[in-house]
Amino acid sequence: MSKTVLVLGGDGFCGWPTSLHLSALGYEVVIVDNFVRRTIAKELDAPSLTPIASIDERLNTWKDVSGHDIDVVELDIAQDYPELRRLLASVRPDAIVHFAEQRAAPYSMRDAAHKAYTVDNNVNGTHNLLAAMAELGLDTHLVHLGTMGVYGYGGDGLEIPEGYLDVTIDGPDGARYPRKILYPTKPGSIYHLTKSMDQLMFQFYAGNDHLRITDLHQGIVWGTQTEETRLAPALINRFDYDGDFGTVLNRFLMQAAAGHALTVHGTGGQTRAFINIQDTVRCIALALANPPAAGEQVRIINQVAETRRVRDLAELVSELTGADIEYVDNPRGEAAENDLVVSNATLKNLGLEPILLRDALLTETVDIALRFIERANLNTIPATALWSGRAEREISQLDAPQIAQR
Amino acid sequence: MSKTVLVLGGDGFCGWPTSLHLSALGYEVVIVDNFVRRTIAKELDAPSLTPIASIDERLNTWKDVSGHDIDVVELDIAQDYPELRRLLASVRPDAIVHFAEQRAAPYSMRDAAHKAYTVDNNVNGTHNLLAAMAELGLDTHLVHLGTMGVYGYGGDGLEIPEGYLDVTIDGPDGARYPRKILYPTKPGSIYHLTKSMDQLMFQFYAGNDHLRITDLHQGIVWGTQTEETRLAPALINRFDYDGDFGTVLNRFLMQAAAGHALTVHGTGGQTRAFINIQDTVRCIALALANPPAAGEQVRIINQVAETRRVRDLAELVSELTGADIEYVDNPRGEAAENDLVVSNATLKNLGLEPILLRDALLTETVDIALRFIERANLNTIPATALWSGRAEREISQLDAPQIAQR
Ligand SMILES: NC(=O)c1ccc[n+]([C@@H]2O[C@H](COP(=O)([O-])OP(=O)(O)OC[C@H]3O[C@@H](n4cnc5c(N)ncnc54)[C@H](O)[C@@H]3O)[C@@H](O)[C@H]2O)c1
Ligand SMILES: NC(=O)c1ccc[n+]([C@@H]2O[C@H](COP(=O)([O-])OP(=O)(O)OC[C@H]3O[C@@H](n4cnc5c(N)ncnc54)[C@H](O)[C@@H]3O)[C@@H](O)[C@H]2O)c1
Repeated sequence: MSKTVLVLGGDGFCGWPTSLHLSALGYEVVIVDNFVRRTIAKELDAPSLTPIASIDERLNTWKDVSGHDIDVVELDIAQDYPELRRLLASVRPDAIVHFAEQRAAPYSMRDAAHKAYTVDNNVNGTHNLLAAMAELGLDTHLVHLGTMGVYGYGGDGLEIPEGYLDVTIDGPDGARYPRKILYPTKPGSIYHLTKSMDQLMFQFYAGNDHLRITDLHQGIVWGTQTEETRLAPALINRFDYDGDFGTVLNRFLMQAAAGHALTVHGTGGQTRAFINIQDTVRCIALALANPPAAGEQVRIINQVAETRRVRDLAELVSELTGADIEYVDNPRGEAAENDLVVSNATLKNLGLEPILLRDALLTETVDIALRFIERANLNTIPATALWSGRAEREISQLDAPQIAQR
Repeated sequence: MSKTVLVLGGDGFCGWPTSLHLSALGYEVVIVDNFVRRTIAKELDAPSLTPIASIDERLNTWKDVSGHDIDVVELDIAQDYPELRRLLASVRPDAIVHFAEQRAAPYSMRDAAHKAYTVDNNVNGTHNLLAAMAELGLDTHLVHLGTMGVYGYGGDGLEIPEGYLDVTIDGPDGARYPRKILYPTKPGSIYHLTKSMDQLMFQFYAGNDHLRITDLHQGIVWGTQTEETRLAPALINRFDYDGDFGTVLNRFLMQAAAGHALTVHGTGGQTRAFINIQDTVRCIALALANPPAAGEQVRIINQVAETRRVRDLAELVSELTGADIEYVDNPRGEAAENDLVVSNATLKNLGLEPILLRDALLTETVDIALRFIERANLNTIPATALWSGRAEREISQLDAPQIAQR
């Protein structure tokens, strides 16, 4: 009998290709989404560059090309606990993949209302899910998407481990006391803050209720299409390039496609971690196949393929497209250069051979940025969020770097 | 000109005597409360042992005996951001003391709905407050009540420092890298979890927005009356002894007053930290008088007078009242004995000379438990919360220890 997996946030950028991949692998997939991402695109007047189909058209097309059914349930997991509980009680899924959070750092910093929305949506959504699993006594494996951004950027050259850190405390007696602790977080935005808070909730429910939880600390996801989304035009995945949801890489690709120079802030020395969307879906399948046991601590895995400096990224795009690079003043007091050494031992041991930027960025440029450039509205690129009126300091905005006002 | 202070949760057990004390010291006090604690007492059918007056009667009486006005605003800080923001914008208080959280561990563990309520109320309330302060650019000093319970009970004999822990990481090069981190939390209930999450929000807003924040990690508060609440019968403070909001000490006092034996679970070897309500209000005044500067990290202070084993507490009550002690099986798999060594250097340095259980417990017995025993409903003593159907392990239920079903 095939296994059932709920994909919360299954209409989103990572969730949609994951749903198709798991369906192709033979899982019974149920997508749960409140479609707020589509609403936010309207709020920001910043639609996906790629023309994305309605969820019904997506699912009908998938049925046509693959023969597989995917169910969909419209539900706000943060606001409707009774419905969420009813759904879990009736489906009793083998696994849940949880993508259903507000995930843009600049969006989370727009103003107090957006801060409050992000906290409310992410914390209550994740907590409702955990409370329902505990209440129903489900033995479901929960796979959550966290972010590399919770680690912050210590920049002291030490490798960032997978979730837990070995430290020692010096006792008054001269003895050293070893402890294994959750990596102390330094979130740089409200979005990242909610992911740090998620970690505490996972720790509690894994300990108190023996829930089986995997938390994937993911780098910046790049690329658009996967094996499955390429099968038909109506399956195409979203491509965001606006100042809130777009990443620095997508901004470079759009600038190049429009014939503009790539604008790099300061020295472009900030290092970030990356992973291709195709590897995201593979890693999630690997995580599902390797659940922790009940009573085990939360399994934390760094879902990262490589780290790159922003200026290296610009050079790569420039090589491929011939675009010029323009170094402009960094409008904020970020650390000019930072190192980032990240362990991704678990996924490597599970056999992942990641797709690298150098090898696959050309496809992304030709198939997406150039192909759909006539749909673009370049005015949406600058972000309007300001981290703070008072504080000027380093910000870790890993998932969706902010772009300066111009 | 006198300073203005908002007391959020100013109708509660700690908030009410604090409001009176600050008013007596010459602060302009504004109480903000949604009175949910009075509603919960009805839900649990567990009123305060002491007859507490309505807020209007309380404030009129205070005006009569002291000549001071205290304002009151009915407001749910977790659910009504616009009103909270309007209030802060018009009052622009010099300081805010934030007691307005659901604070009973057993209540937070009753079922999924109570877990969700506690998370929603505590996280959104605290976040709304921080977001409003940041948005308005207030230079207000925020004093929050945290709990000793966030530290968990390592029991390895090391002293629990005030909020921050010095650790070292061993580098691959043989070098040791020192770091100062937030003490890694091990919350034992959903209530304690929310306090751990509060800490992350404070860290973020102190760093990003330069908010000035003091977090008082308080022990179990005992005692009922303060200098000010004793001034008139209508000013009397609440005394909770039910299984959700009562503490182990109040349960002992009530058992003794009713002529029952004091029931101690297991060996009664669990050590807890205590502080008298009179010292709570003094400490808050001290914290208000010593704010951190803008840009400083969160000032974390352990608000604790002494630590005691539960069996020592029982012996003390037995000595005073002649009650027998009955050792019963511990219904849960708690660690039988734990040490608790706590630093309270900051408050000692500020001059606090705490009231100790040995010296003041008699007054509490005579003035409260014996005096109001005819109002008591001893059936409310057992808690109905069950930590978990599946997990049997140590629970840190610092603020409101759970009482076994009988
Ligand atoms: N995209 C990245 O680069 C990246 C990097 C690291 C981590 N992540 C994490 O992966 C997850 C998915 O990211 P994404 O890029 O696919 O984001 P996305 O915004 O494209 O997708 C999120 C989906 O969740 C839905 N959703 C949000 N709140 C919901 C709620 N309360 N109830 C039901 N549905 C809700 C949205 O409608 C959307 O379809 C997020 O948790 C994100 O933090 C993403
Ligand atoms: N009592 C203790 O032993 C103890 C120990 C350590 C820490 N603390 C902390 O001190 C604080 C006060 O504790 P207490 O014993 O006075 O609790 P309490 O329940 O008696 O008082 C809390 C008050 O806050 C109000 N409130 C709750 N949510 C609110 C909201 N959303 N909006 C407005 N008002 C709201 C309640 O109506 C109540 O009057 C809590 O944060 C608690 O965690 C208490």
